[in-house]
Amino acid sequence: MQLGFVSAILPDLSLDEVLDFASSTGYTCVELMCWPVGKAERRYAGVTHIDAAALDASGAARVKEATAAAGVAISGLGYYPNALAADRAEGEVYIAHIRKVIEAAQLLGVPVVNTFIGRDFTRTVDENWPRFREVWPPLIRFAEDHGVRVAIENCPMSFTRDEWPGGKNLAHSPAVWRRMFEEIPSANFGLNYDPSHMVWQHMDYLKAIREFGSRIFHVHAKDVRVDRHKLDEVGILAFPLQFHTPKLPGLGDVDWGRFFSCLTDTGYNGPVCVEVEDRAYEGSLKLRKASLAQGHAYLRQFVVG
Amino acid sequence: MQLGFVSAILPDLSLDEVLDFASSTGYTCVELMCWPVGKAERRYAGVTHIDAAALDASGAARVKEATAAAGVAISGLGYYPNALAADRAEGEVYIAHIRKVIEAAQLLGVPVVNTFIGRDFTRTVDENWPRFREVWPPLIRFAEDHGVRVAIENCPMSFTRDEWPGGKNLAHSPAVWRRMFEEIPSANFGLNYDPSHMVWQHMDYLKAIREFGSRIFHVHAKDVRVDRHKLDEVGILAFPLQFHTPKLPGLGDVDWGRFFSCLTDTGYNGPVCVEVEDRAYEGSLKLRKASLAQGHAYLRQFVVG
Amino acid sequence: MQLGFVSAILPDLSLDEVLDFASSTGYTCVELMCWPVGKAERRYAGVTHIDAAALDASGAARVKEATAAAGVAISGLGYYPNALAADRAEGEVYIAHIRKVIEAAQLLGVPVVNTFIGRDFTRTVDENWPRFREVWPPLIRFAEDHGVRVAIENCPMSFTRDEWPGGKNLAHSPAVWRRMFEEIPSANFGLNYDPSHMVWQHMDYLKAIREFGSRIFHVHAKDVRVDRHKLDEVGILAFPLQFHTPKLPGLGDVDWGRFFSCLTDTGYNGPVCVEVEDRAYEGSLKLRKASLAQGHAYLRQFVVG
Amino acid sequence: MQLGFVSAILPDLSLDEVLDFASSTGYTCVELMCWPVGKAERRYAGVTHIDAAALDASGAARVKEATAAAGVAISGLGYYPNALAADRAEGEVYIAHIRKVIEAAQLLGVPVVNTFIGRDFTRTVDENWPRFREVWPPLIRFAEDHGVRVAIENCPMSFTRDEWPGGKNLAHSPAVWRRMFEEIPSANFGLNYDPSHMVWQHMDYLKAIREFGSRIFHVHAKDVRVDRHKLDEVGILAFPLQFHTPKLPGLGDVDWGRFFSCLTDTGYNGPVCVEVEDRAYEGSLKLRKASLAQGHAYLRQFVVG
Amino acid sequence: MQLGFVSAILPDLSLDEVLDFASSTGYTCVELMCWPVGKAERRYAGVTHIDAAALDASGAARVKEATAAAGVAISGLGYYPNALAADRAEGEVYIAHIRKVIEAAQLLGVPVVNTFIGRDFTRTVDENWPRFREVWPPLIRFAEDHGVRVAIENCPMSFTRDEWPGGKNLAHSPAVWRRMFEEIPSANFGLNYDPSHMVWQHMDYLKAIREFGSRIFHVHAKDVRVDRHKLDEVGILAFPLQFHTPKLPGLGDVDWGRFFSCLTDTGYNGPVCVEVEDRAYEGSLKLRKASLAQGHAYLRQFVVG
Amino acid sequence: MQLGFVSAILPDLSLDEVLDFASSTGYTCVELMCWPVGKAERRYAGVTHIDAAALDASGAARVKEATAAAGVAISGLGYYPNALAADRAEGEVYIAHIRKVIEAAQLLGVPVVNTFIGRDFTRTVDENWPRFREVWPPLIRFAEDHGVRVAIENCPMSFTRDEWPGGKNLAHSPAVWRRMFEEIPSANFGLNYDPSHMVWQHMDYLKAIREFGSRIFHVHAKDVRVDRHKLDEVGILAFPLQFHTPKLPGLGDVDWGRFFSCLTDTGYNGPVCVEVEDRAYEGSLKLRKASLAQGHAYLRQFVVG
Repeated sequence: MQLGFVSAILPDLSLDEVLDFASSTGYTCVELMCWPVGKAERRYAGVTHIDAAALDASGAARVKEATAAAGVAISGLGYYPNALAADRAEGEVYIAHIRKVIEAAQLLGVPVVNTFIGRDFTRTVDENWPRFREVWPPLIRFAEDHGVRVAIENCPMSFTRDEWPGGKNLAHSPAVWRRMFEEIPSANFGLNYDPSHMVWQHMDYLKAIREFGSRIFHVHAKDVRVDRHKLDEVGILAFPLQFHTPKLPGLGDVDWGRFFSCLTDTGYNGPVCVEVEDRAYEGSLKLRKASLAQGHAYLRQFVVG
Repeated sequence: MQLGFVSAILPDLSLDEVLDFASSTGYTCVELMCWPVGKAERRYAGVTHIDAAALDASGAARVKEATAAAGVAISGLGYYPNALAADRAEGEVYIAHIRKVIEAAQLLGVPVVNTFIGRDFTRTVDENWPRFREVWPPLIRFAEDHGVRVAIENCPMSFTRDEWPGGKNLAHSPAVWRRMFEEIPSANFGLNYDPSHMVWQHMDYLKAIREFGSRIFHVHAKDVRVDRHKLDEVGILAFPLQFHTPKLPGLGDVDWGRFFSCLTDTGYNGPVCVEVEDRAYEGSLKLRKASLAQGHAYLRQFVVG
Repeated sequence: MQLGFVSAILPDLSLDEVLDFASSTGYTCVELMCWPVGKAERRYAGVTHIDAAALDASGAARVKEATAAAGVAISGLGYYPNALAADRAEGEVYIAHIRKVIEAAQLLGVPVVNTFIGRDFTRTVDENWPRFREVWPPLIRFAEDHGVRVAIENCPMSFTRDEWPGGKNLAHSPAVWRRMFEEIPSANFGLNYDPSHMVWQHMDYLKAIREFGSRIFHVHAKDVRVDRHKLDEVGILAFPLQFHTPKLPGLGDVDWGRFFSCLTDTGYNGPVCVEVEDRAYEGSLKLRKASLAQGHAYLRQFVVG
Repeated sequence: MQLGFVSAILPDLSLDEVLDFASSTGYTCVELMCWPVGKAERRYAGVTHIDAAALDASGAARVKEATAAAGVAISGLGYYPNALAADRAEGEVYIAHIRKVIEAAQLLGVPVVNTFIGRDFTRTVDENWPRFREVWPPLIRFAEDHGVRVAIENCPMSFTRDEWPGGKNLAHSPAVWRRMFEEIPSANFGLNYDPSHMVWQHMDYLKAIREFGSRIFHVHAKDVRVDRHKLDEVGILAFPLQFHTPKLPGLGDVDWGRFFSCLTDTGYNGPVCVEVEDRAYEGSLKLRKASLAQGHAYLRQFVVG
Repeated sequence: MQLGFVSAILPDLSLDEVLDFASSTGYTCVELMCWPVGKAERRYAGVTHIDAAALDASGAARVKEATAAAGVAISGLGYYPNALAADRAEGEVYIAHIRKVIEAAQLLGVPVVNTFIGRDFTRTVDENWPRFREVWPPLIRFAEDHGVRVAIENCPMSFTRDEWPGGKNLAHSPAVWRRMFEEIPSANFGLNYDPSHMVWQHMDYLKAIREFGSRIFHVHAKDVRVDRHKLDEVGILAFPLQFHTPKLPGLGDVDWGRFFSCLTDTGYNGPVCVEVEDRAYEGSLKLRKASLAQGHAYLRQFVVG
Repeated sequence: MQLGFVSAILPDLSLDEVLDFASSTGYTCVELMCWPVGKAERRYAGVTHIDAAALDASGAARVKEATAAAGVAISGLGYYPNALAADRAEGEVYIAHIRKVIEAAQLLGVPVVNTFIGRDFTRTVDENWPRFREVWPPLIRFAEDHGVRVAIENCPMSFTRDEWPGGKNLAHSPAVWRRMFEEIPSANFGLNYDPSHMVWQHMDYLKAIREFGSRIFHVHAKDVRVDRHKLDEVGILAFPLQFHTPKLPGLGDVDWGRFFSCLTDTGYNGPVCVEVEDRAYEGSLKLRKASLAQGHAYLRQFVVG
């Protein structure tokens, strides 16, 4: 495995600065954000470390040189929009850019593009399914054609009122994954697995590794603390951020020893990228860098190399 | 305390038969269903053991004679509609009948009417609040004027697709209760407390007893089993019946010893009514009666009298 | 369900006395022991409340009259020899008597015969399999022909040095049951399920109910206490009785509420027979009777009727 | 075993009324309080169902007739003063009455006298030891001479400010019992074992049964709830009643199934007496009687006879 | 946050040697002991790395140079006497020196002085309260006047016979802290929070962080193992060191991941100082240094910088 | 303590390469394998980093120079055959080589030889005992004469069919150790303690440390994960590898914080050697080296030096 981080937490650094920081902190890879150049639409979104729409062969060559020089690989390209947005025109814009990111991955020789399935969050999984069947098979074929694998993060994207109730990503549970992979059995379609979302959804994140091990293409190391005293007030029907708190690895409820115990047994040998969404470390660039250093110090007892 | 049951499980028995069965099984009270005469709108609804709309003084006298003869008290009158239905006209019909049931309780000398707050289930708690403030203060004043207490059951009424996402009853958590009682601090406004709904919402049903003890006017003894193997598949964002199963007292996750331990310490001395919604016992009248006998055999180790 | 007990604990009572005691204690059924008349070969064996070899139509009629008079049904006939004993001649004697018991069940209109698969206990499961395939298909066909179901108890019969290491019954785990039922998919071949053996083998007795529910023909209510202080001394490789103690229901590690919770959900509606192997209650007939009365007092909170 | 109760909770009933109530509730024995006639010195003390000082042969005969008529045995005579009180004169008064109670037990043919060791509660165990060695050897010899066994309850008698810090009874832990029995190895010196005191002292009440099983002469069935939310406020250095609450059996933290599991394995076959100190049931004689009925309903699933 | 250690464990090193060791081991701060020069009165006391009584401006300048040169900050000055000793004259000596340490802190620009409240340990909290109200308000005003914050460690100072029963520091529980801060609401009065004392007092060390977060001025990272096998012998009424063992961070019952999870959420950004009182590492200076190196290696996975 | 590893995982490296790798990874000792030169008889056996049979004074001197140069000590010599093999002639060959290894240890100044007791695995512990009494007293006397201590690893050597049922090493439990040390009370006879074998045998690995602390001469840091989903299928009577998986330290069920907490309290100050038997890391030499680096990164938070 390779320890890395998600570059979204360092929007104020250039690509070279990101690679430099990764290298000096001991990380050997990084997931680079590929949002279209412009304004962020929500927290942790809108960061552009690779401008996929503008990337050409020479641009790709420059990126490859930079990563080789830093000794830091690109674990995947990340772009997490809502491809199934209720507004189809909006969804099409996202889909078009996903294609750009896939093309960029091919150009860069990066094996994986990380994203969401998306969802009309006012409707049920069943009600979203026809649109899933319309949008995703051609996208995955496109990825196949470009030799790129697509890894869907298992985040429900349902935290606060504005995403209530369904969240902006269908792929939030083993039941849905099973359905997705039955629908699209392509070997280029898999998961960007983040155990923290399993935890606050009260699901077993180890059992899922055993069943879906071969579908895990990328891993996010984020942690989460379920706040029982808050849950006792509001219950599981509340907006999820009312009862849980995202934290750095080692500061939440994930048992990382058991996590890597099961993960190693599947033969997984890919990237493990720290994703920082811990508000306690967001006050300054210095603190955000410190959080990545701490994540590395914590995880290296389970992952070397 | 007095052991009783909710009469909804015996729709095929007349009032006299219900009282007779209660008496012979060892129960000393019963919560009688007061749905308007007519067709049931959902499972466990639509049962009429007291026709509140038609009840007059002589009818009340007959009921009192029957309960006295059986040695079985009426713990409360039960009617559980959606008073805050999205369709206001529909809501008004329910509200009008709630008033009838309150009047019936006064006539019968029954201290408590059990019901729901209701909810436009497509909207959030906040969005429902204006309507709550409109409907409930006058209803509670009406109850005060009739010397009757209103006990709101803490059921979210959110189990399957047709109640998704919000459910048909706002009063599902301590956070909401606190808000309700701040809004309407009347001594006639309280809870019909059912620990099972706390369990599947992953809330502490003992802590709530300590805080809201003085607001508990009536108790439902229903149990529930959270099915972890199902929850591991679908997570807490699924329709709740996809991961839990209502069961008879003693066959679920409620620790009844601890429940009565805390309840007795609040000074609660009212009814505890078994509510059967365990599908394993619904096959026949014989089985439903057996389930009530079993509930009595189980609970009498914690409640005598 | 029907509460009963296994008659092996009352060898000093005649059939009529057994039925009379069952009736007066509140039991509605009993599993009757059918060992061949003669000497017991081990503790709890060798009891004959029905002499299957000698039973004829008039004998069966007398038994039926007695059970009808007492209001106590026969839940099953029990005979638990080692049909796969290393000594084939010995095994043939047992097999012949199993056939007699099946015939007796047909005569008596008893739906189930309870027994073991047997095992050459010096050999592995695999090594015993050829003999299983030889002995059991014809036996189950024989049962089919007589309209009787055969329920295999899931006891490993491995407790002390003389059964070491393999025990005298192959059918000790879900892995083996799965293999058995694949080999012989007959609807007349099932389990006499005793959760206590799951407990000391450190297996989940609830998960097994969910998977094998339709195969459960009969239930033994025995409990067991795993003695951690002893296990800490000897470990799981020791003879099993060095670290666990059979106990009455309610005095061991089985959570009977959860047990019946899962069992009722399978639709199981058959007998639940207390099996007493608790040495603390074996000192006298009085104590053994008291143990059965206590088992009834405990279980009736979960099973009525 | 025999189910009984401690008569201290019924000070307003005469001996005959106590026996009558025991009998009609299903109890087969009772521990009778033998405080000197006069004023109670603390809650639950000062009750006199047998006036030991005044008892003579004819009085004893009358008591025996009454118990025989009721079919209720006397499990033990109870008198719980502080024989090691700091004020020696005070202690001597208590010791003299303990002797009277022992004599009464002999007269009545009651096998056990239940009491405390006592303690100068301002001093440590070590500092009290010389006085223990002075007082108790002759007392136990006196009991031996009268064919009576002395059972020391394991209550620390340290609940509130006035007993702080040491409590009024040395015999509160296995470490002290070991020392006591080494000092006085008499077969007439043992324990009146109450698991609830082990619970709030955070000791294993099952391990102690295994080690001191042969010293258990009498059992008190009291339960206790450790209130974690209170303990979190004050910690274990607080007065103990600030963080725990005595409760009826089944309403506290004692696992009675495991308790009787271990107890039966020691061969214990004596009395198990419900001791009510649950404030929730002390409001009226009716409630106190109901509490004893409930205790019986709860415990009979573990103890029959 | 800054990782540091308490200098009391290195009494044989000079200030320069302490700073040098801190620096080379990776620590960025240190709490310096300020006992009056002379003999230690108890284990871990009596160490003088700053002679507060003798410190003047030039001495302070030298200390500042030394810390700057080493790149190691002073997290706080530590002096832990019993200001409320039963002997008032003795208490006054301690109070006078606390003032000296506050003055020294001002001179050195150190923000915090760490100490105890003290206690007449033969008396209850209530009985000590008048003396608390006499001694502490002027002391805190003195600290305010010097721009220094006083952080009270939450250690009960009750371990063995000589501190029995009350211990030498009132500030041992949330209940007492609440009372302290109500009495003296000064922003200069807070806690030097050590989770280990919460653990052996059986209190929730996370809940306390949530409530008292803004009062935490300094943190001690000590760990503790509650020895259940010893507790089972003696119970919580014993001298506390009879059932618990102080250990290095990571070798005890504190869950440091959860500890820092909650602590970071309060916004705490101050020092975290390893306090070594683990007897297993006290054999030699080499071992004591190794223990500090190990504490650093353990904690840096949760704290960077 | 000193962190090391067992050299068996690096059969393809020469002694010098092993020492060099240890040194560069941060290890300060290594247990060197001393199998006779030739073919391995099972996985992890057959490695020869010291050829004990051929070692002479000059060879020993060369080894000592190499270890001194690398700054890496030899924690012990390891040779783990079955000295009590059913075939006595085979056993004698093993015993003869154990003597060679003891002589080599003396020559090298290595304090400990690590091995197994052995066992005729088709027979019980009792049945093996006469042979134990024949073989081991002279072997331990031989070790005494050479100033070498013999540390028996507590591995049952029972994993798969070919070692079933008893395994190839008697010394698998505290019960057996007690018997061994009573039989041979020599101070040169002790344990090479590996907590992982305690875990899958369901024994308390901390309690054993408290009792046998003075007998622990050497420690293996291997971890293990009990796979409950597999155990639920097969139970503890299955071949042990059917329900557990050996893993690197930190990736299994051992709580290493508690392990070192108890171990340090015994005064143990010897080697702690990582033993890699985690199949997930056996794919290549690179991966095996990485596993040792990871083991070091994990354990150094508990062991420094």
